[in-house]
Amino acid sequence: MKYDIQPADGKLGVLIPGLGAVATTFIAGVETIKKGLSQPVGSLTQMGNIRLGKRTENRYPLIKDFVPLANLNDIVFGGWDVYDDNVYESALKAKVLETHLLDAVKSELQALKPMKAVFDREFVKNLDGTNIKTEANKMDLAKALMKDIEDFKATNNCSRVVMVWCASTEKYLEHADIYETVAAFEAAMTANDPRIAPSMIYAYAAIRMGVPFANGAPNLTCDIPALVELAKELQVPVAGKDFKTGQTLMKTIVAPGLAARALGVRGWFSSNILGNRDGLVLDDPDNFKTKEVSKLSVLEEILQPEINPELYGELYHKVRINYYPPHGDNKESWDNIDIFGWLGYQMQIKINFLCRDSILAAPIVLDLALFMDLASRAGMSGIQEWLSFYFKSPQTAPELKPEHDIFKQLIKLQNTLRHIMGEDLITHLGLDYYQELVESL
Amino acid sequence: MKYDIQPADGKLGVLIPGLGAVATTFIAGVETIKKGLSQPVGSLTQMGNIRLGKRTENRYPLIKDFVPLANLNDIVFGGWDVYDDNVYESALKAKVLETHLLDAVKSELQALKPMKAVFDREFVKNLDGTNIKTEANKMDLAKALMKDIEDFKATNNCSRVVMVWCASTEKYLEHADIYETVAAFEAAMTANDPRIAPSMIYAYAAIRMGVPFANGAPNLTCDIPALVELAKELQVPVAGKDFKTGQTLMKTIVAPGLAARALGVRGWFSSNILGNRDGLVLDDPDNFKTKEVSKLSVLEEILQPEINPELYGELYHKVRINYYPPHGDNKESWDNIDIFGWLGYQMQIKINFLCRDSILAAPIVLDLALFMDLASRAGMSGIQEWLSFYFKSPQTAPELKPEHDIFKQLIKLQNTLRHIMGEDLITHLGLDYYQELVESL
Amino acid sequence: MKYDIQPADGKLGVLIPGLGAVATTFIAGVETIKKGLSQPVGSLTQMGNIRLGKRTENRYPLIKDFVPLANLNDIVFGGWDVYDDNVYESALKAKVLETHLLDAVKSELQALKPMKAVFDREFVKNLDGTNIKTEANKMDLAKALMKDIEDFKATNNCSRVVMVWCASTEKYLEHADIYETVAAFEAAMTANDPRIAPSMIYAYAAIRMGVPFANGAPNLTCDIPALVELAKELQVPVAGKDFKTGQTLMKTIVAPGLAARALGVRGWFSSNILGNRDGLVLDDPDNFKTKEVSKLSVLEEILQPEINPELYGELYHKVRINYYPPHGDNKESWDNIDIFGWLGYQMQIKINFLCRDSILAAPIVLDLALFMDLASRAGMSGIQEWLSFYFKSPQTAPELKPEHDIFKQLIKLQNTLRHIMGEDLITHLGLDYYQELVESL
Amino acid sequence: MKYDIQPADGKLGVLIPGLGAVATTFIAGVETIKKGLSQPVGSLTQMGNIRLGKRTENRYPLIKDFVPLANLNDIVFGGWDVYDDNVYESALKAKVLETHLLDAVKSELQALKPMKAVFDREFVKNLDGTNIKTEANKMDLAKALMKDIEDFKATNNCSRVVMVWCASTEKYLEHADIYETVAAFEAAMTANDPRIAPSMIYAYAAIRMGVPFANGAPNLTCDIPALVELAKELQVPVAGKDFKTGQTLMKTIVAPGLAARALGVRGWFSSNILGNRDGLVLDDPDNFKTKEVSKLSVLEEILQPEINPELYGELYHKVRINYYPPHGDNKESWDNIDIFGWLGYQMQIKINFLCRDSILAAPIVLDLALFMDLASRAGMSGIQEWLSFYFKSPQTAPELKPEHDIFKQLIKLQNTLRHIMGEDLITHLGLDYYQELVESL
Repeated sequence: MKYDIQPADGKLGVLIPGLGAVATTFIAGVETIKKGLSQPVGSLTQMGNIRLGKRTENRYPLIKDFVPLANLNDIVFGGWDVYDDNVYESALKAKVLETHLLDAVKSELQALKPMKAVFDREFVKNLDGTNIKTEANKMDLAKALMKDIEDFKATNNCSRVVMVWCASTEKYLEHADIYETVAAFEAAMTANDPRIAPSMIYAYAAIRMGVPFANGAPNLTCDIPALVELAKELQVPVAGKDFKTGQTLMKTIVAPGLAARALGVRGWFSSNILGNRDGLVLDDPDNFKTKEVSKLSVLEEILQPEINPELYGELYHKVRINYYPPHGDNKESWDNIDIFGWLGYQMQIKINFLCRDSILAAPIVLDLALFMDLASRAGMSGIQEWLSFYFKSPQTAPELKPEHDIFKQLIKLQNTLRHIMGEDLITHLGLDYYQELVESL
Repeated sequence: MKYDIQPADGKLGVLIPGLGAVATTFIAGVETIKKGLSQPVGSLTQMGNIRLGKRTENRYPLIKDFVPLANLNDIVFGGWDVYDDNVYESALKAKVLETHLLDAVKSELQALKPMKAVFDREFVKNLDGTNIKTEANKMDLAKALMKDIEDFKATNNCSRVVMVWCASTEKYLEHADIYETVAAFEAAMTANDPRIAPSMIYAYAAIRMGVPFANGAPNLTCDIPALVELAKELQVPVAGKDFKTGQTLMKTIVAPGLAARALGVRGWFSSNILGNRDGLVLDDPDNFKTKEVSKLSVLEEILQPEINPELYGELYHKVRINYYPPHGDNKESWDNIDIFGWLGYQMQIKINFLCRDSILAAPIVLDLALFMDLASRAGMSGIQEWLSFYFKSPQTAPELKPEHDIFKQLIKLQNTLRHIMGEDLITHLGLDYYQELVESL
Repeated sequence: MKYDIQPADGKLGVLIPGLGAVATTFIAGVETIKKGLSQPVGSLTQMGNIRLGKRTENRYPLIKDFVPLANLNDIVFGGWDVYDDNVYESALKAKVLETHLLDAVKSELQALKPMKAVFDREFVKNLDGTNIKTEANKMDLAKALMKDIEDFKATNNCSRVVMVWCASTEKYLEHADIYETVAAFEAAMTANDPRIAPSMIYAYAAIRMGVPFANGAPNLTCDIPALVELAKELQVPVAGKDFKTGQTLMKTIVAPGLAARALGVRGWFSSNILGNRDGLVLDDPDNFKTKEVSKLSVLEEILQPEINPELYGELYHKVRINYYPPHGDNKESWDNIDIFGWLGYQMQIKINFLCRDSILAAPIVLDLALFMDLASRAGMSGIQEWLSFYFKSPQTAPELKPEHDIFKQLIKLQNTLRHIMGEDLITHLGLDYYQELVESL
Repeated sequence: MKYDIQPADGKLGVLIPGLGAVATTFIAGVETIKKGLSQPVGSLTQMGNIRLGKRTENRYPLIKDFVPLANLNDIVFGGWDVYDDNVYESALKAKVLETHLLDAVKSELQALKPMKAVFDREFVKNLDGTNIKTEANKMDLAKALMKDIEDFKATNNCSRVVMVWCASTEKYLEHADIYETVAAFEAAMTANDPRIAPSMIYAYAAIRMGVPFANGAPNLTCDIPALVELAKELQVPVAGKDFKTGQTLMKTIVAPGLAARALGVRGWFSSNILGNRDGLVLDDPDNFKTKEVSKLSVLEEILQPEINPELYGELYHKVRINYYPPHGDNKESWDNIDIFGWLGYQMQIKINFLCRDSILAAPIVLDLALFMDLASRAGMSGIQEWLSFYFKSPQTAPELKPEHDIFKQLIKLQNTLRHIMGEDLITHLGLDYYQELVESL
């Protein structure tokens, strides 16, 4: 069975709330890639391949050659920010990419000026900015955003638009009644309810406009019943939340390995040091809480202490994020993992990851933009769980536990692609190579 | 389709060439586990669970409750060694387990005395020993081993026997004509050909006796056409080679994670320090060569530079093993991984694994003994590729590249178990949760 | 000039407020050392040597053979604690030493029962205990302690007594008027002023009794003008504060090395994980504040940014302590040091210290007890700056900056010993070996 | 007593055998510093200060303001190399400094062309080059070098010249008769004895010309009786050997700290990865032997196992250097240190130093050039042990053991400077602050 996928004709607009380090690294990167100056390393859609058929067939096409994605040359960018720096200026301040690289696409970047943002300091105390919309209430703000989207689409002659949230982590929110139904949510917007976060206003506006929405921060945003309901009703794909980079990326790589071998884990201490705007925002305990919840859930879901109490029942998991200006965007993590093996004997693993926050996040923005657009063209709406691969805290159907094991996430993603393209799913059974009888691979 | 599996009735004999650190840790461990003093942590068969059916079914039985494995209480041990220490004495010298733990099973361990070994110092220069068979030629040595197996089985009233090689790494061997056919191999044994390694004599004897053989060292041993042919002919399962522990275990966990995200790898430097007998043997360049070949192949197969030249074409991979007596069996590895991401920007990962060699290896011996016995009872003969999960350098059909990605190996193992038990294979597709139409999970 | 030092005749009583992990490790250790079961590793007085004279003289006596210290066999122990466990029970709970070692001196340890402590939960929120004195006011509490000291001395037939504070870190205190003079201090005690910390009451009682007092925690305690004045007046040595172990020990080793080479330091991030009672106490921000002040000052004094602004003017120094139960007393630190060299090029140093808190602290308790007793017999009173070597935050004369460089501290200590014993001071000049003319070495 | 030091008038020529990564980083660096573009970080002479007098005097002048050193603006450069690249080209190939920085001093660097080198592939197998002198025998080669020096001095109008060996490590040499006396050495040169290394020919030429000679590699070079005798006779300062950078620098910082605290050391494993020309040369076992001897001696001299057998008698010390091209000049070291404390309890320290080889070495070249010139002007001849601070394997008088403790080396250096300038030596005694009686500080 192959899906009926609309072709990727025309321009694809990528609209981004938050034109900071991640977004500018993404945009500047795509522009240099278009010019052949750099490679989209880290992007599965551009540089990853996928195995098709049996191992002996030796079929490993690039994913972009296998599924009908938008071409990079057809992408146009836009966005909102509380600061009015154009993308070139903002990228310079972010200090992620070298100046000589930015200068190679200077005119393209300078042309990109942020639209006025929806912002509320209640949600991000450590930031300030003046490029802000001042509509009367949250519903009006949403309408202003919808107007922005419409104008952007027309001006740039886009056939489709997707939105990817790249702005800061908002403060922690508890679930509430107003998130339960579309009606309650819309009433709360009009009533300017303080529990409606800016990111929710963006997500609402996007879904209302039929624009797929992916959430790169740990905020609830579109992970509330009201917006899932709206997305299904309007046939819009949504996905989230929190780009999986750095330490959590390593954690969802290593933890499945320990679980695979039935090795016990008694403690996992994770420390991060980073000095960019993200680090500054997370220095506020309210915002760190949101992040912490996102980061802590990972191990429990992978190790399943309820099923394996002798191995993981005593696990002590602690995550610390420390603002440390000398490192700038060069986030560094240090993990100490206390494991035990045969007869309970103890061992330790220490992982020191000298990474770069925005360098790891930028290709995720690209892949999500392209895959969300694909999902939309393939008629897949509502929560896109198959994109869990990209998120620290994947949004799923309410009755399902999210899958955090990056390798299961990858198989899910790959088998989804095989499925919609009508290829056989891979199970890695492979007994037929030895038994000379025909079985499903 | 469910396989017709013979029940695990009666005693299972586990025969081990090489009663050193790994074997004594395995044997002493099983004895303390039988007494309820310790837990078989690290053993997938004993403590691992397996998901069956859809996620919402919440079926996660222990593997030992799902497939009909031999019970630990039905296992009896035997083995050969060049030193004539009994297992208690050998375990004391190995300094892996604490004395008070060994003392709890002292009488069981003291009763286990090694049979005279087949040994040739040409293959392991740094060891010496006097508990050695002195038959006239290698065929006679094989016959003496077959006699040992027969006697052991009778004495211990075993219904089945399996053999797991836990002895030292032998020196490096090139492929040769004498390994091509059973006939040539047997002629070479009779002619005392110097290219027939002691481990091959054990493997030959085992297969001839219908005893499944698993190889825990990187030696060729049963990974030659002659012995594969014999194993198929006599319906005996074989598997190998080189237990996957420590650094390579971590490597086959982390490398798939980097590949999953299409992150480039420019260099991977792996250093090991260990001070046990294994370290002493590997201090000889001839023996290290055998190990190095086994360790180096891992990355290439996972990263596939031929398919991903821009990401992995320049990879420089170096592995060092250093004999360092202060650490004894507490092997420690340090890896530096030079990766690059978006636009080629460089990052580094450092992994420091303070592990324990024999603690990681012992549960593998147990799982292999139980799974090889299962395979035999299920009528699976020849190469057992589904046990790749346990090996640094998995033995496969000649036309296949080995799979090193530990997560694909795990799925292969789990789907094989599901397959032989008649359960649905898992593909992690899971679109049906969202689409409300019936698809294979 | 050699000092006139009273001989170390008779018993030396070592009285300890706080019979927790550090104190019990110290006491149990000394008892096993007395029996020849262990070695006093880490103790400069017992195992360290000192060079005397010119290099070519080859004179390196042990310190204990050079200066007249009390003999270990003449030491008797006593102490106070808020819990009424005897030293054997407390040591078991601390989980620092193995049970079989404690059992070798079980009767000696069981005989040591804590006297009722002076305690105030206002100063240590995370602890609780019932073995507490209930006198009417702080002056009365001091008198009760003096009575304890007197009784202990008589009962144990001691010729001399010293006191070493091994209890928890108290909450942070600002300097205040009541600390300025003996008169103000005593009035505040009688008035039960909340700014008089329990540790101050112990210090006051000790000094009043002529008992040398050393402070192993970062609390002010005797580092206030009132108590320094009293110590001078009564000819009693005092020293402090905060035993230098673990991360700060490493810091005062490494930082002088960087400064020696004029290498710049832009950032120093220090993270600690520990799971003992000390970690629990420091999980309270008020108590951490006291510790943080002690830990942070170290780098500034060593690197002197005011004199070397280009190298150290921008230094960002952050210290984190994380309560992490899986490690117990096995404190672990991880430091990331961002340095720069020639032309400003950046480099990094990462130090991971897997240490044991009490194992590092115990020999310091021993050395301080012996050296404080020596100082007393040598007629040295007031602040003993030459013992800076043992402290994170050395107490000095008010007009002096403390010296944190451990190597300068060591020279100071060694030259002090040479000085009081009438030996030549060492300057490491050594030109005379080459110039054949007589100069001071 | 103050020395009579000749003023630093006129130009100082710095002549360098080996214009590779270290030399070009040094030269290019000094040129950018002259232009005010960078800072001489890591240079004690330029950025280090020295304490004079009592602590309360607060006198901390820069060393360059305290002793009469040559001014950077008066330095001119020259050198020899087996490749004929000018310094700009060689610096580009070395990939240590960024191109934009080299371009700022391009014309100065391009003007520096290497003179033909004295070279013998017998001593450095992994290098090759054609810019080589072809005189008939080693004495004639020495004379050719003397001619080079003479010409350089005249052309550049230098009042003084110093020579600093920055070329590769030569293969290991045993001591031999021909090194014993000047006469035997000169006869061997004329006889073209294969045991006369190229570096010895440079050292001989320098000393004969009255040019101070410092040796930055571990080769014997001037550390033979013949050349020491000649140096004394001709009143020429010599110093060596092997610049102390990277791992050994850290080792001589950390080991004294452990020794200071009487902590035991059971094992020290040191691994290095580097990918520059130095790494390539050391990939040859003959050359590594020379380096290994230099690196291994360090710990023994600092820890003195013969005096402290219980602490250091069992020390197992291993050093590995691994050629790893991905890192280029960015040398990285990883050390595992197995220590033990109170009662023998074990602890570990891991140090990961991400350093830059040439960045650490360049300021040493500068300091040695300036201090050797100072020594010469101060009438100090023969071995300059006070410069041990800069060397892995300091050259000393034959009856003395070298001092490796970097802090004793620093005091020696600083007290030497104080001594020749007539200032009081520092002993860190400081009792007078407390005793109010006048003693030497």
